Amino acid sequence: RGQPTQDPPIHCDLKCSLEDIYKGGSRKMKITRKRLNPDGYSTRNEDKILNIDIKKGWKEGTKITFPKEGDEKPNTIPADIVFTLKDTEHDKFKRDGSNIIYTDTVTLKQALTGFTAMIPTLDNGRNIPLPCTDIIKPDTQKRIRGEGLPLPKQPHRRGDLLVNFNIVFPDYLTRQNKNVLKDVLP
Amino acid sequence: RGQPTQDPPIHCDLKCSLEDIYKGGSRKMKITRKRLNPDGYSTRNEDKILNIDIKKGWKEGTKITFPKEGDEKPNTIPADIVFTLKDTEHDKFKRDGSNIIYTDTVTLKQALTGFTAMIPTLDNGRNIPLPCTDIIKPDTQKRIRGEGLPLPKQPHRRGDLLVNFNIVFPDYLTRQNKNVLKDVLP
Repeated sequence: RGQPTQDPPIHCDLKCSLEDIYKGGSRKMKITRKRLNPDGYSTRNEDKILNIDIKKGWKEGTKITFPKEGDEKPNTIPADIVFTLKDTEHDKFKRDGSNIIYTDTVTLKQALTGFTAMIPTLDNGRNIPLPCTDIIKPDTQKRIRGEGLPLPKQPHRRGDLLVNFNIVFPDYLTRQNKNVLKDVLP
Repeated sequence: RGQPTQDPPIHCDLKCSLEDIYKGGSRKMKITRKRLNPDGYSTRNEDKILNIDIKKGWKEGTKITFPKEGDEKPNTIPADIVFTLKDTEHDKFKRDGSNIIYTDTVTLKQALTGFTAMIPTLDNGRNIPLPCTDIIKPDTQKRIRGEGLPLPKQPHRRGDLLVNFNIVFPDYLTRQNKNVLKDVLP
């Protein structure tokens, strides 16, 4: 009878919203595992709750390992259970490390003549007014400092909220208005 | 003494411009290989020219194999030499299969009020006028049929030339002109 070998690790996704990463929190994951009976051969199913402490600012791909929580079998070391953090899709923001990116849709008129954008945040319903007086170009990016995700190693500090712009052009202009534009645009 | 084994293939890039793919042509590749002397053990270096017939419309990744053109060694089958087609960067076009993509840089005034673009082709200096009367938006793509690369299996037919637009916004507008734009743009 040789050395007991360990089953290969069991990988599971830990899906977290950007709000989870923003606030941190805990997550209970229920697993069902086989446990050996006292006879050393037969097994029974046992439910177990694994508690995961989601730290503020965790990056996608962060791994949390629960050693030897897999099925018990004779002469075998149970597998480790490894959770890997995956971001869930957010309806407003994309993540870029500790920064978050928001795309504001504006009309061409707003982009050229100025306006104040209202930018949402991850902070439950709070919006930030962002005055845009310079011309917004298709590649313009504005940065709202400190409104991103917590930095994983210094969670009291935060990344930035980056704002891109989707500029909606008119579908149609009258001949007369085109002539005015020819005079006004460089 | 066992069966002779073959050395693993030698891979080389065959760099072709889009013009080469457009017109087809031939390419001479000089190799230096070791050849066995009549004694069956000592070797000499020998230069050799390999002729590659570049067919119109070949896709990137096309492989051309010259069997057993590697070094000769006792009791060994010389390696195959495998050339793999790689596109060289073109200053005007990107390739997308048998289509080519050109990005025309236009002013916002042109995009909104209309103009005729002059679109270059792969056909040595010939330009195609492309009237743009509808508003050009950032995601507008126009298609000039039959001005792309030859189809590899029907080289008398050709893919399309796709035209994207890079719209250059003004850096600055006067307050007065901004007020005019507020009236004219929807």
